[in-house]
Order: sequence, then C-alpha cells, then structure tokens
Amino acid sequence: MSKLFVIKVGGNIIDDETKLAAFLIAFAAIPEKKILVHGGGKLATRLANDLGIEQELIDGRRITNAETLKIVTMVYAGYINKNIVATLQSVNCNALGLCGADGDAITAHKRIKGAIDFGFAGDIDRVNAVSLSKLLDNHDALVFAPITHDGKGQLLNTNADTIAQELATGLSSLFEFHMVFGFEKAGVLLDAEDDNTVIASLSQGYYEELKKENKIFAGMIPKLDNAFAAINKGVRNVLIGRAEEIGLMTGGKAGTTITNGKAQVQ
Amino acid sequence: MSKLFVIKVGGNIIDDETKLAAFLIAFAAIPEKKILVHGGGKLATRLANDLGIEQELIDGRRITNAETLKIVTMVYAGYINKNIVATLQSVNCNALGLCGADGDAITAHKRIKGAIDFGFAGDIDRVNAVSLSKLLDNHDALVFAPITHDGKGQLLNTNADTIAQELATGLSSLFEFHMVFGFEKAGVLLDAEDDNTVIASLSQGYYEELKKENKIFAGMIPKLDNAFAAINKGVRNVLIGRAEEIGLMTGGKAGTTITNGKAQVQ
Repeated sequence: MSKLFVIKVGGNIIDDETKLAAFLIAFAAIPEKKILVHGGGKLATRLANDLGIEQELIDGRRITNAETLKIVTMVYAGYINKNIVATLQSVNCNALGLCGADGDAITAHKRIKGAIDFGFAGDIDRVNAVSLSKLLDNHDALVFAPITHDGKGQLLNTNADTIAQELATGLSSLFEFHMVFGFEKAGVLLDAEDDNTVIASLSQGYYEELKKENKIFAGMIPKLDNAFAAINKGVRNVLIGRAEEIGLMTGGKAGTTITNGKAQVQ
Repeated sequence: MSKLFVIKVGGNIIDDETKLAAFLIAFAAIPEKKILVHGGGKLATRLANDLGIEQELIDGRRITNAETLKIVTMVYAGYINKNIVATLQSVNCNALGLCGADGDAITAHKRIKGAIDFGFAGDIDRVNAVSLSKLLDNHDALVFAPITHDGKGQLLNTNADTIAQELATGLSSLFEFHMVFGFEKAGVLLDAEDDNTVIASLSQGYYEELKKENKIFAGMIPKLDNAFAAINKGVRNVLIGRAEEIGLMTGGKAGTTITNGKAQVQ
C-alpha cells in the first residue's frame, strides 16, 4: 500500500507569506503522494469587512449566510487555492486544486442542529475515494479548499480539520495514511509555554496517563481525541507540529507523532 | 478518435441565472466528453467597484494590475467556477473545475507589447494535452476559468476565447474536436438585425464570397477568422450560436456550423 500524507494547515500559515512559502517548498519535497487541506485565514474576514458584510452569530455560533458563502468560495477556492497550486507548480510539484464539488469529491448536507440553522455550513456525508485516488495517480498533490457540495447544486462551507479527518475515513483503506496537523506550536507540549517540551511520541496509553495528571492543555484535548479516533479508523499515524517543519516531521525529527501504541520504526 | 466538445460562454450567459441554468442542463446532456471555458461577467466589475478598485487603462487598453488579478482569480476561479461545477454535479454531470495552474494545464507568459506592460495578462505558451486527456478519461466535463500560470508561481489573466482556441491546438490531435462559441445571437446572420437569417453552414469559400459582398458584420470578422484558423489546425467544426441552444447546435439544428468546406453529414 503506498503512503499518502494528508496535511492540514490553517490561518497561521496561510496569512504569513514567508511561512507559507517555506511550508510549500517543504511540502513539495515530500516524495510521497500528498493532499493539502487549507483553511481560510484573515483574507476572507478582511474582504467581508471591506464589503460591509457583517458576521452573523446565533447563540454565539458563526452562521454561514449566503454572502459569507460567496466570500469564502471566492477567497478559499479561488484566491488561496489557485495561488498555492501555482506556487507548488513553480517548485516542481504537479498539484491540482479542488473543492468538494470537483469530481464529486466530497458531498455534505446543511448543518441544522435543533433550532439552529447554521446556514450554508456543511457536514460531510461521503468522500469519493475512487475519484480522489484516480486524481492522485496522475498528480503529485491535491490541494483542497474547505468547501463541499450537497449534490443538488449547493456549495457548503466545511471545516478544514473535518475535511482532513473525513479524507482519512475515506482513503485509509487504499493508502498507508499519514495525517499532519499544522499547528502554532512545535508539537504537543508538556509545558504549553515551552517549545522545548515537545512530546515526541504519544500513544493512547501515555495520553490517558498525561490527561489524568492534567498535563495536557485543555484546548488540545479535542484535537488529540480526533487524532486517536483517526488512528482507530486505520490511519497509520498523526503528526502535530509546525507546518513549515513538515520535512523534519515526516522524518520523525520534529513534532509529536500520535501512534496506535504498537512499536514503530521512526 | 472520440469526440470532444469545447464550449466557450461569456458574460451574456454567466450574468443571466435563467440562461445559465438552461445552458448547464443542455451542456450536461451532451453525451460526449466536453470542456466548458467560461468568461467573467459583471460580477468581477461589480466587486471591484464595491471595493473601490479602479480599472487601469493605458492607451485605452485594459491592464490587469495586482488588485484586478486578485479579483478575477476570486470571482472566475472561485465563485463562478465552483458554482458551475456544483450545478453540473446536480444534473448528473461529473465535472471538475480548474484553472491553467491546476495539473499544469495551461502555461503562459506576461503580455508585454512594445512599451505597454499589460500587467498580469497572460499569452498562452502551452496546453498540457497529456494532463487534460487523463482528466477527461475520469470526468464527464472539465470547467475552465480563464486564469493561467507562468510556471514560476504567477497566475495570469487570460482571454477565454484564446483558451478555447489553444485547447483546440493542443487537443485536436487526440480528439475529434468540436468548438462551440456561445454568442448573443442565434448564429452568424446575413442581416445582423434579423435572427431568422442564420447561415446554417459556412465554408471558407462561402465566407470569402460574403465578405467581398460586405455581408458579414465587421465585428464578426475576427471571430470567424479565428474559427477558420481553428479548422485549419484540425478542429472538425466550429459552432456559433446561443449557448442555451447547445443541444440543438450540436445536432446541427441551430446556430452556424463553420466547416472546412468538404461534404459533412449533419
């Protein structure tokens, strides 16, 4: 089974030209097939502000109204996605940019929870593994904007972390699947203030121990729970660390590797 | 050799929701492989106005400055492209949307003519026939936004008509290539004011005759010259007419068919 790296990067990379350039060079250098899932960053918010479009909140939750969907489609699937693809092409990485509508890659449905209509926010139903594996056959990398579709002509705004996780569910039977979550810190830290306290390798057992001792920063718990859920679905390992250090991370020389607890060669 | 339809539509379709919907249903119903090349429409101009970005003109020619490139990338490759793809998916047409950077599909260079720097406007160097034919193997349709790249990380704004023509140059050795230019009129007219005067079939000889008699509207001449140039490069025929009548046009029941003058079964 061939290796596939799925790497999610967020605003801290997208908004920083220098970090983004460094990351894309390191990403291109990964010899295996790879999928980049990018989030948004500040550009969409700035554009909405410039156009006088106000963010809609219901009970403190962000709503994707029609105007917001238009902006994220323009910024994420247009500006950010195509610039990343053009940069990757310039460093000899034959990338293809897409959203969930392209090739029917990811279908979703509108999120409605109880009385709250989240607008055009999508929860994923299905990842089209056949379509994606054919695209991976013919390209070095796929670049995903966090937009899906409902199969009835509607685009939907979808969380980039969730897209990365659902790609794992859809593709880990076809590939030796490695997930990487780009992060502001060097990895999972024993001391949130000290980048020198990176936990190199974290098994489920060790994680439970650390949680009991309150040594895991509360904000990390959902991220790590998701990582272990991915491992239990067949993902080989999950790497957490600075996206621009992806080269070191895939070599086991930086970041935290979340494993299934069995012996692993690093 | 299998048939390939390359269909270019412009603002008159993109800006009209009803016409666009009718066109996309007819487009999806074409049983052969197809590429849709879409132009811009008024949305990019409207967005630039809303953001207070002024159009830059040098000697009466429109310049694609950095801000304009950003807007067309967002609107063409993001909003318009992804909405077209989502609509096609909803009518059972497995489409993939892309720009010239995706899969290194179309490379171009910045247009500089004499003293005029057109900014980020691109003239096409190469269409990647191998990459596109693989994408066509696995999808019913490709949808092209009129954005290319220079291979060095720079996106470039490129005329949609030119993209359609260069696709012909690049792909007509691999496919029986049919081009369709969506148009505001029912076809090439003998009387520009009367939609009932469509010329059903136009050979080079007949065209030269009509030109001598001043029966071709001056504005049509560059379009028709390009159509005959395409025919001479190996394109099987060029159809000109209303994009929303694409079904009738491909059946030879509407529009003008530009042919190489040899006998053709319609």
